[in-house]
Amino acid sequence: MTRRIYVDNSATSPVSERALKAMLPHFREEFGNPSAIYSLGSSAFKALEDSRRQVAKALGAMSSEIFFTSGGTESDNWAIYDACRNRGRPGGHVVTSSLEHNAVAKPLAKLAAEGHRVTVLRPGPDGQISPGSLEAELTDQTFLVSIMTASNVVGTVLNIKELCAVAHKRGILFHTDAVQAAGHVPVNVRHLGVDLLSISGHKFHGPKGVGALFSKIPRAPFPYIDGGGQEKGSRSGTENVPGIVGMAAALTEAVEALPSSQKYLADLRDRLVEKIQRTPGVRLTGDPVNRLPGHASFVIEGLAHGAHLINELNERGVCASSGSACSASSREASTVLTSLNISPELSMNALRLSLSVENTEEEVDLVGEAVTEAIQKVRDLTKAQYYHSH
Amino acid sequence: MTRRIYVDNSATSPVSERALKAMLPHFREEFGNPSAIYSLGSSAFKALEDSRRQVAKALGAMSSEIFFTSGGTESDNWAIYDACRNRGRPGGHVVTSSLEHNAVAKPLAKLAAEGHRVTVLRPGPDGQISPGSLEAELTDQTFLVSIMTASNVVGTVLNIKELCAVAHKRGILFHTDAVQAAGHVPVNVRHLGVDLLSISGHKFHGPKGVGALFSKIPRAPFPYIDGGGQEKGSRSGTENVPGIVGMAAALTEAVEALPSSQKYLADLRDRLVEKIQRTPGVRLTGDPVNRLPGHASFVIEGLAHGAHLINELNERGVCASSGSACSASSREASTVLTSLNISPELSMNALRLSLSVENTEEEVDLVGEAVTEAIQKVRDLTKAQYYHSH
Repeated sequence: MTRRIYVDNSATSPVSERALKAMLPHFREEFGNPSAIYSLGSSAFKALEDSRRQVAKALGAMSSEIFFTSGGTESDNWAIYDACRNRGRPGGHVVTSSLEHNAVAKPLAKLAAEGHRVTVLRPGPDGQISPGSLEAELTDQTFLVSIMTASNVVGTVLNIKELCAVAHKRGILFHTDAVQAAGHVPVNVRHLGVDLLSISGHKFHGPKGVGALFSKIPRAPFPYIDGGGQEKGSRSGTENVPGIVGMAAALTEAVEALPSSQKYLADLRDRLVEKIQRTPGVRLTGDPVNRLPGHASFVIEGLAHGAHLINELNERGVCASSGSACSASSREASTVLTSLNISPELSMNALRLSLSVENTEEEVDLVGEAVTEAIQKVRDLTKAQYYHSH
Repeated sequence: MTRRIYVDNSATSPVSERALKAMLPHFREEFGNPSAIYSLGSSAFKALEDSRRQVAKALGAMSSEIFFTSGGTESDNWAIYDACRNRGRPGGHVVTSSLEHNAVAKPLAKLAAEGHRVTVLRPGPDGQISPGSLEAELTDQTFLVSIMTASNVVGTVLNIKELCAVAHKRGILFHTDAVQAAGHVPVNVRHLGVDLLSISGHKFHGPKGVGALFSKIPRAPFPYIDGGGQEKGSRSGTENVPGIVGMAAALTEAVEALPSSQKYLADLRDRLVEKIQRTPGVRLTGDPVNRLPGHASFVIEGLAHGAHLINELNERGVCASSGSACSASSREASTVLTSLNISPELSMNALRLSLSVENTEEEVDLVGEAVTEAIQKVRDLTKAQYYHSH
């Protein structure tokens, strides 16, 4: 069997040993319902609130500002729908960016259909949005700005602190989707100044099916899911205690490791980028400097479709993606890429390699070789019209 | 340390060994994103679809009719909001019951505020709703009926098949919250005839944070959470593969065990009820015959508040609740109980004991003794006005 090398950590990441160890007692032993008043309930409640404190600490927030959800998508939906339906002015104005994940973009599209005006900012070719370009779009009707902290597609880390300051100068709410950033670069809600921030457990070696919304707006977010009144009445449903405990442990671990992991990953990434860029017709996408430490993304000339490259890499034991996790057809990725002034054809031929601390230098070298070989093979087959004839 | 006996399985249940074993490989080994096109993604996709088939089989449904959610509350919210906002007539009419969990009742209260007319049926003293009483409330404006399969508070198992037939005779959609029923009594969507049915993993020894909605309505439910387009575009967010696998394994296990577990639990329950009813002033609530096999619920005279009894039981190592999981203050339970013609005072003094196949006859005898003692002690303290003076 070919050795498997996983370099698609932006899509999802394995649960860390520490996080899994923290979760395990909560499945069969400490399994109580946190709302129950007997000892087994109180200990579940304690685990829940300890986790809330850990997540708050990792983000520089207060415990009372952390609301647990079923994942980054729910956090994004909640932030956007709550802001627009419960706090926005009817027919109000929202500013967002062309980088956003569908978890932000689709709710805004729905709200646009309901009568909100939505401006989609186009970043520069490096994926950066300048404070000036945001400022130019703000009007007296603008009540919400939603711009992601780091791009899942091109790895750019944006200057949320400055962008948020621009919005706040006019008293406008600021939400950021930090799903790709939390645990990978320092994310401190006080430093950034944001009002709402979304995270997702499985993007930083926590479990799938759990996320959080940071909210510092005066009142808690309005209920997004109604029922038993959990999460201070804002998000009903029996709390996913093992998942929440696992996410808190993983985030704590990731944030503690940042001083060393950022450098370790950036070194690995730069080594990988250098190797892959030796092949002609390969271009790094996103900001070459201000980018996620483990994130390397490219567009590649001379391929019929990026998916062929992913398949060739899979044959070589390398798990990589063409730009975003959610659509194998890479249509979402290509929307982001074309907004960065990359041609529609080239946008379909993207490659994303996202590393984690579990990757080694040896693995990165093997991935570099595999990518070089695979590009050559797909280019040869494309030239021979192999893909068209099948 | 006092030996712990857990008899609050209607609140939440420990993950079964089989379910946990099924989940474990999906945290760190088979952890791929089901949307990814490489091998690790395909195997996650396969695990997801195998789980969907298992859940479908356990409920007598087709795989295409099963949508995974973050739990029973989300399933209920989704069913109700989708039916009312996307399929209902403006100002239309919904019929529900006073037995419903807040996951159904609260969305309907919101929808009533938005202009829907909502009729709340009051069951008989045993918690049963007669087909005739439902039929009498249906009008040409009625487009949805939502009545639970089994009561979390009093354990009554309703005649959903007949109630659904009454609604269908007039072409009205039927939703049932089967959160307490699935895995505890036979729940077959074809036999019941329902259009929408909600389940929750942790109520049948699956994990918390995962549930499913069965939907046979012509088109899939409209998106409730928007984003990457998972669950056929209906429920976005990276799928909680370990949770889904665990839920499917637990439901399969529970349904396979039904032929023996129902009798085992009913025998244990009857033994417990018989013991507890020896104490004067203790009354079984709900239907004495058509009730959940492991569910024993009572109202008890001469207590200042049901919570005192729960605390006394906790001192004796017994984890029980006063009626529903979500509110320690038992306010929700008491709303259900008063609707069954139980006085407001007595409704605050409820006790619910819910057994699982992990409980033994010896445990049930210990619980019976503990309850008898605890009732006596709380009555003595209540008489001595101990609780009022503190």
